[in-house]
Amino acid sequence: MSYLSVGVSPGNVPVYHGTSLKVIDKRVRIAELVLRCLICVSGIAVAILVGTDTQVREIFTIQKKAKFTDMKALVFLVIANGIAAVYSLAQAVRCVVGMVRGSVLFSKPLPWIIFSGDQLIAYLTVAAVAAAAQSAVLAKFGQPELQWLKVCDLYGKFCNQVAGGIASAVLASLGTVVLSCVSAFSLFRLYSGDKFKNGGRW
Amino acid sequence: MSYLSVGVSPGNVPVYHGTSLKVIDKRVRIAELVLRCLICVSGIAVAILVGTDTQVREIFTIQKKAKFTDMKALVFLVIANGIAAVYSLAQAVRCVVGMVRGSVLFSKPLPWIIFSGDQLIAYLTVAAVAAAAQSAVLAKFGQPELQWLKVCDLYGKFCNQVAGGIASAVLASLGTVVLSCVSAFSLFRLYSGDKFKNGGRW
Repeated sequence: MSYLSVGVSPGNVPVYHGTSLKVIDKRVRIAELVLRCLICVSGIAVAILVGTDTQVREIFTIQKKAKFTDMKALVFLVIANGIAAVYSLAQAVRCVVGMVRGSVLFSKPLPWIIFSGDQLIAYLTVAAVAAAAQSAVLAKFGQPELQWLKVCDLYGKFCNQVAGGIASAVLASLGTVVLSCVSAFSLFRLYSGDKFKNGGRW
Repeated sequence: MSYLSVGVSPGNVPVYHGTSLKVIDKRVRIAELVLRCLICVSGIAVAILVGTDTQVREIFTIQKKAKFTDMKALVFLVIANGIAAVYSLAQAVRCVVGMVRGSVLFSKPLPWIIFSGDQLIAYLTVAAVAAAAQSAVLAKFGQPELQWLKVCDLYGKFCNQVAGGIASAVLASLGTVVLSCVSAFSLFRLYSGDKFKNGGRW
């Protein structure tokens, strides 16, 4: 008997009865919810830590102010993590609603949308971390060959706060990477052999 | 009848007989092979374009030489794409051997290893592109707030060749992203409902 044929309701919202299936699905849902909450909190932390970071220094009677918009990679980091936080919050609400209702959508469009969204967010957050980390290395150590100075020598407090933001961003991006695997599992397990044999499209 | 139970041989190397399954599996394998070849060629192109890039300029009788090792992000780009090229070549050979033999490994360890490797390579190449693109933007436009100069005004030919390398790296990373979805499909479709109901581990 196929997984997909267990108790399918007319509205493509099947309620299934296998105990093992229920336990596994519950675990997957809980893991998904925890990860989405983690990404949301980490994303907000990044936006706050980096987005509010400023430092003013006086150099030869001239006041100079460092802010995150001075580095495009930090702007990208804040935007990417802001998007990840909002997206994760919306998906967490969907998870909770699904858990309260106790039903599962087995129609393919929704798992495909969730999978695509999760993949996009995972690559977006990883790319943002990589770009920000590259900028942070340049700011910390400079690039003597190109006459790019170590700005962290001048703006130490600013750099430390950015480092905290990048650490949170690493946590968020690890969460999105694991989550993209969970949603891939939730989508592709629907493509069982029986489905192919019955002429199912993919 | 479960997908996994079709003609399983004692050595975990089943030969299955469903025509739809064969057609779908053949398409997946061809797509996988094409993508692996694309990544391999693009990765080699990146390594050659960026790794061999140099330019010498004379500034006030002092000779200055730009090379890719001056920027850590370019070193990371070359290493990441080199790894991706070698890994893709090895996997392409595995694909060809599988296609010639006409058999499929349905035991879980191999798909899990391929899936993990593909995921790792996908995130590695995307991170390398993001870091290199960030460095390229800094080199092209500078960062006046931090007194970082536009080095591309001085090393135009060097920067153009790096741009070609980054374009190839974007192509390679797109290939790895699509491929990670293909290997996720190949792995997780093994986790059908029947497998769970029979107490299969995951």
